Amino acid sequence: MSSTKKPAEISKDGSFKRQTNRFTAPFGEELPIDTEKYRLIWSPACPWAHRAVIVRRILGLEDAISLGTVSPMRPQISRVDWEFSLDEDNQDPVLGIQYVSEVYLNADPEYAGRPTVPVMVDVEEKKAVNNDYFHLTNYFETVWSPFHKKGAPDLYPGDLRDAIDELSDAIFHDINNGVYKCGFAHSQAAYEEAFDRLFARLDELEERLSHNRFLHGDYITDSDVRLYTTLARFDAAYYNGFRTNRNLIREFPNLWGYARDLYQTEGFGDTTDFDAIKQHYHLSITINPDSTEEKILPKGPDLSVWETPHNREEMSNSKKMFRY
Amino acid sequence: MSSTKKPAEISKDGSFKRQTNRFTAPFGEELPIDTEKYRLIWSPACPWAHRAVIVRRILGLEDAISLGTVSPMRPQISRVDWEFSLDEDNQDPVLGIQYVSEVYLNADPEYAGRPTVPVMVDVEEKKAVNNDYFHLTNYFETVWSPFHKKGAPDLYPGDLRDAIDELSDAIFHDINNGVYKCGFAHSQAAYEEAFDRLFARLDELEERLSHNRFLHGDYITDSDVRLYTTLARFDAAYYNGFRTNRNLIREFPNLWGYARDLYQTEGFGDTTDFDAIKQHYHLSITINPDSTEEKILPKGPDLSVWETPHNREEMSNSKKMFRY
Repeated sequence: MSSTKKPAEISKDGSFKRQTNRFTAPFGEELPIDTEKYRLIWSPACPWAHRAVIVRRILGLEDAISLGTVSPMRPQISRVDWEFSLDEDNQDPVLGIQYVSEVYLNADPEYAGRPTVPVMVDVEEKKAVNNDYFHLTNYFETVWSPFHKKGAPDLYPGDLRDAIDELSDAIFHDINNGVYKCGFAHSQAAYEEAFDRLFARLDELEERLSHNRFLHGDYITDSDVRLYTTLARFDAAYYNGFRTNRNLIREFPNLWGYARDLYQTEGFGDTTDFDAIKQHYHLSITINPDSTEEKILPKGPDLSVWETPHNREEMSNSKKMFRY
Repeated sequence: MSSTKKPAEISKDGSFKRQTNRFTAPFGEELPIDTEKYRLIWSPACPWAHRAVIVRRILGLEDAISLGTVSPMRPQISRVDWEFSLDEDNQDPVLGIQYVSEVYLNADPEYAGRPTVPVMVDVEEKKAVNNDYFHLTNYFETVWSPFHKKGAPDLYPGDLRDAIDELSDAIFHDINNGVYKCGFAHSQAAYEEAFDRLFARLDELEERLSHNRFLHGDYITDSDVRLYTTLARFDAAYYNGFRTNRNLIREFPNLWGYARDLYQTEGFGDTTDFDAIKQHYHLSITINPDSTEEKILPKGPDLSVWETPHNREEMSNSKKMFRY
């Protein structure tokens, strides 16, 4: 029997309303920028965390911000928590904790939301200080610049910021969170509305990418990172698991070439873990803390196709993929 | 909480073992061939029943064998029964029954299996007389010939019967029932074995169809009917619902052209009800009689693509699609 009580993030009309982020103190203001002060916690399954890890790698922030990795499989004890079960003794070696919820409760003993990744943790205090996935890459790209590697590219150029911010909103509502609105909908109407918005936006970007190698032209920006993390999960997870089944991404000529172009670029493919993605979405994901359903892991799709040539460099006027 | 008791057709290793057919008395021997004596019960959702309806239409047996249609949605009272809920007062107008199980129990009061379609029912006695979906089309093609329409094609030519029978076995085990073995598996190993056999067989047929318009050459035979009913359900239902997600059928160039070639031929597309197929597999199918799970109907895929040109007539040496 399925539980009849609706989970916290399902509204009356059956639509999924993602919880707001609890810890949004800005870096460079309330939160000082300093090397080795923070640890970024991610799961390779999670698109919101993945974007932060891509930008951290591209900008060379690895030495300044350490990285802790939680398993794609939710712990049995709470199906909305994340666990350091990939580490020895199930403990993050730096923070000495087993569950991500611990840093949330250390920061706020009353915290009752889902403990999400990405989360930036103050290493000394073992407290969550920022889980603002929407702005985290922008902080990395701007106020964190003193710790960028030498010759790091500019993913958020001043003259493009308005355009990037505008597109981030559209990508967030219709695509990044759009797939979740499809997958978590508890009513047919809420699902169909999200489905239509998702594919309308993908169709629009398919057209945009017919004459632009990347979303803002010849160079990779923050917008591309945001779109990529959903595209990388689409055929392997969302199409089946979230019923986003009008078309596969590999059926959109431009989006598919674009996705592979990014995948084959340092920072993207090397941080993309399809096994973790498949395990999480097919075996473990739920917004229901009491779920006990047993599941089978789909064997497909063939993911070797991500390595195939895309020839999109021919669209570009520049030999470089980034602005500097 | 999911039920822990395994359904009747799931074996110890988690694999799906389809029940054997209870009523297999042969037509033309134990069962006399006569017009208006039998009623064929089908659901447009069901591939096993669909094949009988395609052959009935191509051979022009409509006047000799009447047709009753059950809803693609399983009744609430038993999730393994079929119901005449599309008819007025939820009753088949000829048999005056609400559930398919009634003709099974009329024939055998001890019948405890799933009441399946297709089933041939003796109209006067209101009893199931034959539910042998594997051989039913062959009966239609042979001993039922006195009632074929004038100029009906030969779907089971004498010189091809061995080849057709051999292929029927392979198509049955690896494809027709193979998708169910994927979808109903209760263990990862059983699922993966079925998955590998399914796609190995599809790859083999993809190659075969690169130089044959139809499975046995230039003419449509019983083999094509058997393969078609699974192909027609693959992208709309199995890929998502049964995790047969290595590739969509529309991603195999030859199988996809072939499937559309058949779909666009009388008897195939006009008996294919994608709405019924989607409703059944996504909202209603289960082998668990106690299932109460609430479900959302996937909006995709775009099924208008079945109408697109295939150009496979160019592969054929004949202007005719059937032997006579």
